[in-house]
Amino acid sequence: MTFPQTNRHDQSFSKPQCHRLIWIAFWLVVSYPGSVLAQSPSSKQIDALVDKQLWPAIDELSAYVALPNDAVNASDILNNIAWTEKALAKRGFQTTVLKTANLPLVLAEKTFPKATQTVLFYFHLDGQPVRANEWNQKDPFVTVLKEKTGAGDYKELSSNPPKTVVNDEWRLFGRSTSDDKGPIIMMLNALDIVQAQKKTPPFNIKIIIDSEEEKGSPSLKGALDTYKDKLRADYMIVMDGPMHSSNLPTLTFGCRGNAGFTITTYGPATPQHSGHFGNYAPNPAFRLARLITSMKDEQGRVLIPGFYEGIAFDDETKKIMAAVPDKEQDINKALLIAQEDKVGSNYQESLQYPSLNVRGMKSAEIGKGAATIVPSEATALFDIRLVPETDGKRMVELVRKHIEKQGFTVLDHVPTPEERLKYAQLVYFEGNAGTPAFRTSINEPMGVWLRKAMTNGFGKEPVRRDPVIIRIMGGTVPVVPFIQALNIPAVIVPLVNMDNNQHSPNENLRLGNLRTGIKTCLSILTTPLN
Amino acid sequence: MTFPQTNRHDQSFSKPQCHRLIWIAFWLVVSYPGSVLAQSPSSKQIDALVDKQLWPAIDELSAYVALPNDAVNASDILNNIAWTEKALAKRGFQTTVLKTANLPLVLAEKTFPKATQTVLFYFHLDGQPVRANEWNQKDPFVTVLKEKTGAGDYKELSSNPPKTVVNDEWRLFGRSTSDDKGPIIMMLNALDIVQAQKKTPPFNIKIIIDSEEEKGSPSLKGALDTYKDKLRADYMIVMDGPMHSSNLPTLTFGCRGNAGFTITTYGPATPQHSGHFGNYAPNPAFRLARLITSMKDEQGRVLIPGFYEGIAFDDETKKIMAAVPDKEQDINKALLIAQEDKVGSNYQESLQYPSLNVRGMKSAEIGKGAATIVPSEATALFDIRLVPETDGKRMVELVRKHIEKQGFTVLDHVPTPEERLKYAQLVYFEGNAGTPAFRTSINEPMGVWLRKAMTNGFGKEPVRRDPVIIRIMGGTVPVVPFIQALNIPAVIVPLVNMDNNQHSPNENLRLGNLRTGIKTCLSILTTPLN
Repeated sequence: MTFPQTNRHDQSFSKPQCHRLIWIAFWLVVSYPGSVLAQSPSSKQIDALVDKQLWPAIDELSAYVALPNDAVNASDILNNIAWTEKALAKRGFQTTVLKTANLPLVLAEKTFPKATQTVLFYFHLDGQPVRANEWNQKDPFVTVLKEKTGAGDYKELSSNPPKTVVNDEWRLFGRSTSDDKGPIIMMLNALDIVQAQKKTPPFNIKIIIDSEEEKGSPSLKGALDTYKDKLRADYMIVMDGPMHSSNLPTLTFGCRGNAGFTITTYGPATPQHSGHFGNYAPNPAFRLARLITSMKDEQGRVLIPGFYEGIAFDDETKKIMAAVPDKEQDINKALLIAQEDKVGSNYQESLQYPSLNVRGMKSAEIGKGAATIVPSEATALFDIRLVPETDGKRMVELVRKHIEKQGFTVLDHVPTPEERLKYAQLVYFEGNAGTPAFRTSINEPMGVWLRKAMTNGFGKEPVRRDPVIIRIMGGTVPVVPFIQALNIPAVIVPLVNMDNNQHSPNENLRLGNLRTGIKTCLSILTTPLN
Repeated sequence: MTFPQTNRHDQSFSKPQCHRLIWIAFWLVVSYPGSVLAQSPSSKQIDALVDKQLWPAIDELSAYVALPNDAVNASDILNNIAWTEKALAKRGFQTTVLKTANLPLVLAEKTFPKATQTVLFYFHLDGQPVRANEWNQKDPFVTVLKEKTGAGDYKELSSNPPKTVVNDEWRLFGRSTSDDKGPIIMMLNALDIVQAQKKTPPFNIKIIIDSEEEKGSPSLKGALDTYKDKLRADYMIVMDGPMHSSNLPTLTFGCRGNAGFTITTYGPATPQHSGHFGNYAPNPAFRLARLITSMKDEQGRVLIPGFYEGIAFDDETKKIMAAVPDKEQDINKALLIAQEDKVGSNYQESLQYPSLNVRGMKSAEIGKGAATIVPSEATALFDIRLVPETDGKRMVELVRKHIEKQGFTVLDHVPTPEERLKYAQLVYFEGNAGTPAFRTSINEPMGVWLRKAMTNGFGKEPVRRDPVIIRIMGGTVPVVPFIQALNIPAVIVPLVNMDNNQHSPNENLRLGNLRTGIKTCLSILTTPLN
């Protein structure tokens, strides 16, 4: 490991002398992870710098969240892009809007004298769709700061806190506070700290900001053909997804992919009065239910032949998974479930397998508009989370074959009247091979570097010195084809709390994670590459 | 059978003489069902009178349909009531609006000198909810006259037909054209024909018009306590529901009842990211699917123990069912199904059994707002069509017990967080014993009278002389508790085409049914009681 020469370019130093001393002291401490100083004053001062940055970061994140960002609305995304460019320019980055077949991407670059290598950071600015009426706040795009109540719910702070105080357990609620605007703000504010100290990172920085991640980043891979040179880097760090539930510093060496399919079953051509046709017209909801039921046992294990084929763990892998300090009991309490599904023998193991999930299901109506009818059709949307052993196309085909074996005629189109009259049990099946999984080896030089950066930043914490190593995370980062195309080592550095209700109503960011997120970015920005 | 003395009260006769002759000729024919005259000129003239009444009836029905009538909107129902009162007053009826605990009812009365008995007719003016975007016309409350296209669809007539022409196969599309405003208009226009002839019906008439039938007529039974004297009658005729699919004159001696229940299964407390929790957080859609699947076999036969208990047919019953000219092949073609469910060995038999129907099912979202999440809950709405042998309360309890036997903890409330943490498989179960079935004996004096009236009206048709006798119809007339409370014989005289898309988008009335409906009302209004 090279001693960090962070004061080399520090010619125009103008801040109070104490700041300089703090910075040097910081590096003296963090560059010796084995230091016997458990909590040196310098480390405390670094924490103070981060602490001071929290309210500016909260305000900046709130301003960012205020811009609606569902990528179905192009103009909303363009607003977000303009805002993002301005925020990056403020930090001295040169920004370029990269046009694509769909919505554009933002590329930001900043080089530093003497830096020889480049790290490419990936974020995304778009968010999942919202249905405002399901949120416990007026507007998902107006952040609300809340504290936990005794009942495990959150309520708005009764008064505005002074902008010197931040409680780590407070949470900022709003769409994309965690996924993924929060991490962008963490990086920007870590850059502010570095800049305020007149220091420079030991590598050149490129930042690519996706605008269609929640739609599967359809244009990201295509953009590579056009912009491969501009994106060239030595390493790629993906800052998306949640940390380990312990909120300990986390390095994630892979993520599951995401395939999917939709099935629709059919009853009478139009919904029919259930009195006149109940016991006569076949009900598509029963047919769909039967198909769904055939796919999994009661413990959530997939029954489709071949679904888990090729998955096995060696001893080292088992050790890595065992080292993750998961507390299933706490996860279950957070989810309010009495019993988890039984795929793998613990949470980490469950993520090593592909999953099969009904993400939406509908037949006729259950609320307003519900009627006493035999529905005409029933539809279920599924996702299959992939692991590197399971190819998306093959998995979708396994499901299709399984449905056929249940006695259904499987069509790749909405059935014609003739087909409805000919085949007793019909399914319209629409598959999508989706995004593959990726997994990087823990022992790459990049992995060694990042583990050091984490130990630098957090090695002094009394409880734990090494980061949590996640072999593969459950969620999908659609950046995978992009990683594969750039052909550089990539690691995910997740920063947000796992219980952030990502993709759901009441998404939130725990402020303790804002704090450690800024600190993590700071550690990476100040730890030299090997 | 008494000879009809229809000219007794005909003192103020002022119409052309020929009309009087036609009327007398009509009675000469219809009162001799065994007449050898297959198609007497007089019968033809009666048909001409009905024919002349068709366009006025179409126009009046369109004006009536133009008033939205979902009983969730009280003001809409009040508009309908005002319109209905006016239409009845025009026919010389004295109307009263009967206040109830919910929306009011309309009672209309007209007595005739020498009439000693009273027949109470039941209709309803409210309609099922509409979702306009699912209709093949701009507005479900603006009727559209359509003709069949080659493809089996319907298209709007290319030009307005002259108001002298009515094609029996044309259809008038709009909410409640069949269920149940159409029959009200048929009766009103039959009364117009009687009145134009200066004839009087051989019995006093009471008409009760319900305003909440599609909501289960919650206030109808309660209204009896207050208005029992006003409603007193000797016989009750319910004009609601579809005719036999052959469109032959139909008498229905009972109808199925309708109970129901709602089940909700649970997963994580809030929807969770399917990547991070797929294979770990149990999916409520799979649980709901398993419950639904456990309830029926692949042929649609209910597997819940005791569900079909007590149902058996004697030889006479089998004969009655066998005499109904059902063509299952035609029904299937209309529904676009290759295979019907296998409850009973034919359509009529299937109606003698209780049915179990998923009328709506939902978990998370499948359209806009769909996300890659493990849903938090999944809900299905069921209806159970009842027969006299199956009590609603008992049936709901059988289902509840069955769900418990599948390993679920069944709650009568939304689970508390504590309950979610305690029980692995939870169901919130909400049952509703609903409306019972009724069945009247075919050999009551009332049955004999109505069969005569049908034979009077249609006995000269070349194909069939006797009406189709339906032992029990599939649909539910919520008037049943009312029938039971009045304790008088009741028969349903259905008038509309079975393929009317009742309760669904594109509800319609076949104009041939408007014709025969008016004729049926005319036959009843002019056939003396035994």
